[in-house]
Amino acid sequence: MSASPLIIDGRAVSARILSECKTRAARLAAERGRPPGLAVVLVGDDPASRAYVRSKDRTCRELGFHSVKHELPATISQTELLDIVARLNADPQVDGILVQSPLPKPLDESAVVHAIDPTKDVDGFHPVNVAKLALGDESGFVPCTPLGCQRLLVESGTPISGAHVVVLGRSLIVGKSLALLLMQKGAAADATVTVAHSRSRDLPALCRSADIVVAAIGRAHFVRAEHVREGATVIDVGINRIDDPADPRGYRLVGDVAYDEVAPRCRAITPVPGGVGPMTIAMLMSNTLKAFEQRP
Amino acid sequence: MSASPLIIDGRAVSARILSECKTRAARLAAERGRPPGLAVVLVGDDPASRAYVRSKDRTCRELGFHSVKHELPATISQTELLDIVARLNADPQVDGILVQSPLPKPLDESAVVHAIDPTKDVDGFHPVNVAKLALGDESGFVPCTPLGCQRLLVESGTPISGAHVVVLGRSLIVGKSLALLLMQKGAAADATVTVAHSRSRDLPALCRSADIVVAAIGRAHFVRAEHVREGATVIDVGINRIDDPADPRGYRLVGDVAYDEVAPRCRAITPVPGGVGPMTIAMLMSNTLKAFEQRP
Repeated sequence: MSASPLIIDGRAVSARILSECKTRAARLAAERGRPPGLAVVLVGDDPASRAYVRSKDRTCRELGFHSVKHELPATISQTELLDIVARLNADPQVDGILVQSPLPKPLDESAVVHAIDPTKDVDGFHPVNVAKLALGDESGFVPCTPLGCQRLLVESGTPISGAHVVVLGRSLIVGKSLALLLMQKGAAADATVTVAHSRSRDLPALCRSADIVVAAIGRAHFVRAEHVREGATVIDVGINRIDDPADPRGYRLVGDVAYDEVAPRCRAITPVPGGVGPMTIAMLMSNTLKAFEQRP
Repeated sequence: MSASPLIIDGRAVSARILSECKTRAARLAAERGRPPGLAVVLVGDDPASRAYVRSKDRTCRELGFHSVKHELPATISQTELLDIVARLNADPQVDGILVQSPLPKPLDESAVVHAIDPTKDVDGFHPVNVAKLALGDESGFVPCTPLGCQRLLVESGTPISGAHVVVLGRSLIVGKSLALLLMQKGAAADATVTVAHSRSRDLPALCRSADIVVAAIGRAHFVRAEHVREGATVIDVGINRIDDPADPRGYRLVGDVAYDEVAPRCRAITPVPGGVGPMTIAMLMSNTLKAFEQRP
């Protein structure tokens, strides 16, 4: 392609959404006499999880949200954890609850997710919200990463209705949820969606038939030039650590897409970092505002 | 193709599954001191629904199931209907509950489905079961029609793992549920699945890329020869009424597939009638047995 691809700036989009959230939050807080509230529960001391929780906490303060943070030792019992969730469910100042995944063993993550009040489940993993997504019921909460992918498609001017989207990866967190989101009726949807995965045959040809390729397969540089047709839009959800002696940390983070060879073929593409990653927190705040608005 | 296609005989497969259900039911009934029980609730007097309910009732008796049938006037109130569902939920002799769809207006079908105990929801439409399907949790109930389609693929020796399946139609009852079923990990699954619909572009080319085409779009003879590549397997979920002066009823039932021109291209194909249709009741009985087995 002669023109350079549009590099979809997830940081800029995220910043704009967060700024809009701040304005909406201030208006709603004035109407209701209290700000929206987000509670985050962190168990154990995984460094990536801690960094993510800190960033959520900081964003809450920047946006004028009420922020509740529970940092718990990895030795906490299932009962104690469920008790904290129950108190957050009952807390009238808390609109959204997020229990940071993964939970250390032997805690039962599924039981914890089930225990969250679905109307406060801003992560969108409670079965009630999974079912609402499948049913196309817009009162539910959609997981933040697929929601962020959809938003980046819209922001980059990529037509979705009638487009063929190939999603690489079938996790509920990303692949299946994004497929359900984009195949439903309505705005920013109505796509023809294919879910492909490690067992799929002839992925390059399949992906080349797509107008939009979403890579969420968790393998560094898996999507090559041969997977992408000229003029396609590519959304890279992957975050993979690869060795890099030149980097002071000894590694660097790369996506599922071999960016250098794929980008020249694209109409638009997300970089890693700076593409889908920054969208997660924007969608989390947006979901929390939605929970606040829907609260009777 | 030189060889004739395999015509997938849904009546024969259904009869064999029902016969297996009868044997399993007798063994389980002996162990537990009671037979499996299925309750069917019919509201109003839609002739197709009445015929279907009668056939369920007859099949229950043939298989030695305990059969409960509630035939209710279209004037029944929502409260009375929910009260009947509550009593069936509490009835220890009832393992499966099916409320025949569609309900006459102004009854709220969604509220009724929500009221059914998910462990007795053998139709698979309760949100708990929808979520279990999305999560790949095999303790849930999958709707009978997609389950029947999957079974016909297996019975016809069609490889599913790694195959590209194009599902035409995105209803929860068929399209989305079948997509979720075939894309999950495990036996009779692991497919690459595309969900296409009325908004999809260039359906003929898309369908020609498929190893398996499932037509659930609700339009008579929509799938033509140009949609099917040589050697593909075609599953026809459609039941459409078209005028036929030569038929004593003035109409006949046809599928979504233009059978005469499509069949010669196929490795295997389901006829209408006699393909997917007869599978529904077999899967309903099978789901009821599963509910019986899972009851503590």
